[in-house]
Amino acid sequence: MKNLLSIEHISNEQIATILNRASELEAGAPSQLDQSYNVANLFFEPSTRTKTSFEMAERKIGVTVIPFETGFSSTLKGESLYDTVKTLESIGLDAVVIRHKMDAYYEELLEGINLSVINAGDGAGQHPSQSLLDLYTIQKEFGRFKGLNITIAGDVSHSRVAKSDAYALRSLGANVNFVCPKEWQGEFEAHQSWDDLIETSDVIMLLRVQHERHEGNANFSKENYHAQYGLTSEREKQMKDGAIIMHPAPVNRGVEIDSTLVECERSRIFDQVSNGVFIRMAILETILKGRM
Amino acid sequence: MKNLLSIEHISNEQIATILNRASELEAGAPSQLDQSYNVANLFFEPSTRTKTSFEMAERKIGVTVIPFETGFSSTLKGESLYDTVKTLESIGLDAVVIRHKMDAYYEELLEGINLSVINAGDGAGQHPSQSLLDLYTIQKEFGRFKGLNITIAGDVSHSRVAKSDAYALRSLGANVNFVCPKEWQGEFEAHQSWDDLIETSDVIMLLRVQHERHEGNANFSKENYHAQYGLTSEREKQMKDGAIIMHPAPVNRGVEIDSTLVECERSRIFDQVSNGVFIRMAILETILKGRM
Amino acid sequence: MKNLLSIEHISNEQIATILNRASELEAGAPSQLDQSYNVANLFFEPSTRTKTSFEMAERKIGVTVIPFETGFSSTLKGESLYDTVKTLESIGLDAVVIRHKMDAYYEELLEGINLSVINAGDGAGQHPSQSLLDLYTIQKEFGRFKGLNITIAGDVSHSRVAKSDAYALRSLGANVNFVCPKEWQGEFEAHQSWDDLIETSDVIMLLRVQHERHEGNANFSKENYHAQYGLTSEREKQMKDGAIIMHPAPVNRGVEIDSTLVECERSRIFDQVSNGVFIRMAILETILKGRM
Repeated sequence: MKNLLSIEHISNEQIATILNRASELEAGAPSQLDQSYNVANLFFEPSTRTKTSFEMAERKIGVTVIPFETGFSSTLKGESLYDTVKTLESIGLDAVVIRHKMDAYYEELLEGINLSVINAGDGAGQHPSQSLLDLYTIQKEFGRFKGLNITIAGDVSHSRVAKSDAYALRSLGANVNFVCPKEWQGEFEAHQSWDDLIETSDVIMLLRVQHERHEGNANFSKENYHAQYGLTSEREKQMKDGAIIMHPAPVNRGVEIDSTLVECERSRIFDQVSNGVFIRMAILETILKGRM
Repeated sequence: MKNLLSIEHISNEQIATILNRASELEAGAPSQLDQSYNVANLFFEPSTRTKTSFEMAERKIGVTVIPFETGFSSTLKGESLYDTVKTLESIGLDAVVIRHKMDAYYEELLEGINLSVINAGDGAGQHPSQSLLDLYTIQKEFGRFKGLNITIAGDVSHSRVAKSDAYALRSLGANVNFVCPKEWQGEFEAHQSWDDLIETSDVIMLLRVQHERHEGNANFSKENYHAQYGLTSEREKQMKDGAIIMHPAPVNRGVEIDSTLVECERSRIFDQVSNGVFIRMAILETILKGRM
Repeated sequence: MKNLLSIEHISNEQIATILNRASELEAGAPSQLDQSYNVANLFFEPSTRTKTSFEMAERKIGVTVIPFETGFSSTLKGESLYDTVKTLESIGLDAVVIRHKMDAYYEELLEGINLSVINAGDGAGQHPSQSLLDLYTIQKEFGRFKGLNITIAGDVSHSRVAKSDAYALRSLGANVNFVCPKEWQGEFEAHQSWDDLIETSDVIMLLRVQHERHEGNANFSKENYHAQYGLTSEREKQMKDGAIIMHPAPVNRGVEIDSTLVECERSRIFDQVSNGVFIRMAILETILKGRM
């Protein structure tokens, strides 16, 4: 595996291998990298958890991180992403982790670039390391995907996570449903109310509502959204035994989810963050080993 | 000691222990940390010396620093400080150093957060690592605090340093006086002129005048301030034998202090910076050892 | 050698020593530094390749890099460069790499500062590490400088590279010509057309056109510039056997150079980037060894 660009590019077997390796690393297995590698994190959009998670994973796996400030680089002078990445390759980098607002930005890097590219989010496209950590969180909980009922609620059409996760979960045999206002369902067929999905779901995965996109629209006031589509404390009480709550974060407390539920017993929200470090260690190791 | 939030939270014995350990580290004692720790520096306000000093101290004490750009994080998306710090804890950080413009920002971190918090300045509140380095500088010079005459001059009401230092110095037995315009004395009783304080002080500690707060007010023109409240070269000549000059910096040359005095024989301004690295090594070591 | 400020400050012998050491390092020679050193990179102007190149070189040579965000430092509060650098020296830094928009900013650092300063570009002044990597690229290609015909084309008057390179190349015995619009020749005597320089040049070195300086001037539209002064694919075909193309980058594709030539056989544009890392390793090693 040279690059990790989209969850749709990797097979169920490759997914299983990465989840298994993350589990070994979480149990304390040492890094399998036995030479030095240099990587950089190019985040052209704000990020706390994904960037910091990669920074931590890189250090735990023993690679050297070369700092790169996107807000202060030659891209300000109009340099293309190809030329920036080719420059980093010439400087000696083995891999770059990129988040960029342009959908499928990586297509201009497929030819002529020899270093490895790990996609940390492209526009409204994919976010494969997030999907893998979501899968890892579900696998740790249930030990399987087949037959699980998973409901994804929120702004599906603008969510990288919804797309990547739904694709992977379905191909692994889970039943995936969506709950959201009709305007937000995008390419998917969504339920416009929770109905009995609350009681039948093994996993309720909430998405961040991006207020800035919907300001001035009364139907989407925070209170209205929370009452109709959010995970209220009443709805949580109807969830079945052993069912869990997930959210890619950052959370809008009181909008997608009642603030008191963020760290409740069912919540795996901060566990997802912890799991993300091991998943990213496994991704980096797998890709860099392929370069030896 | 789990956190370092305010100089008022630590006893005179704890202060003595930290100053003593800084002294050992300055003399070349090796780090007592025998496992790996991960820390991050979250500076939500500009800083050169405090941030760089922590960055250096962290490397000298042998901890791993995970970079975190506050200007490019999810706090831009409105995430609470609690959720940001809980995320960093979930990623595996053992401690965070935080500077934030909100007074006592750390109160929302006292419950539910397990990592250690080191306060590097909260609003107009406290700046305990600066106080400790000031104490260390004075102790190296005089070997004691009891009976020393210490005069703090400048914008006392807006100064974290004035508050932290005055509290600690008084509790250690020093006599602390203030010199400043009446408008700036805040909660303290200040002298409105130097009078005989110039000749009786063992330590003259100058504070930065924040011009941006006082623009357009003729009483506080740079020249007027320097003449009435600044350390002019004439005043320096009246200081007693062995008396020293301190300043937390950055210095406004020609305002708080005549430019030629910044590196004069009495000045400990750049020594304070050097001392700060050893104090922060001692703080980090003390707090992280407590986590073992 | 305590500092590296301008190519004009170092002798041809010192240049030869640095190029030779870069060559050894490129061949895999280990770092000659046998104690730990701390450096910081102070880039007050945007940069991708120079900053990242220094970051990589520093890690490959085994020095500790203390991060310093210029956009978030006390220089925002008006602190002088002298006071900032003196602070970094007091914190324990051995060397700083500085890029700054002010010509000869380093003059205020010549007295009173003990750490080493490496100039990574001062205003419209010098950029000595770029010159050294250009010289290294030429030497690797031709094994000599004497008698080589080198043509520099572009906005000569605003280019640090043009000035540094022309000075060094001439002092090493090369023939240097310039091609550019008369308005851009600055202190040099330039040709206003390529004439037979295309066919006689061993090296054609293109400079970045800074559109932002020339907007609204039809003579300097991108198309006009490319046709009159750019390296078109037609002109490339007239270049002599073994002649090479250089560019300090970032490149304006289709302006200074036809986009298809950026990675053509003659182009050494990305090789320059690779060479820069070894040159900077040699510079850092030479300067830090001098501090032992």
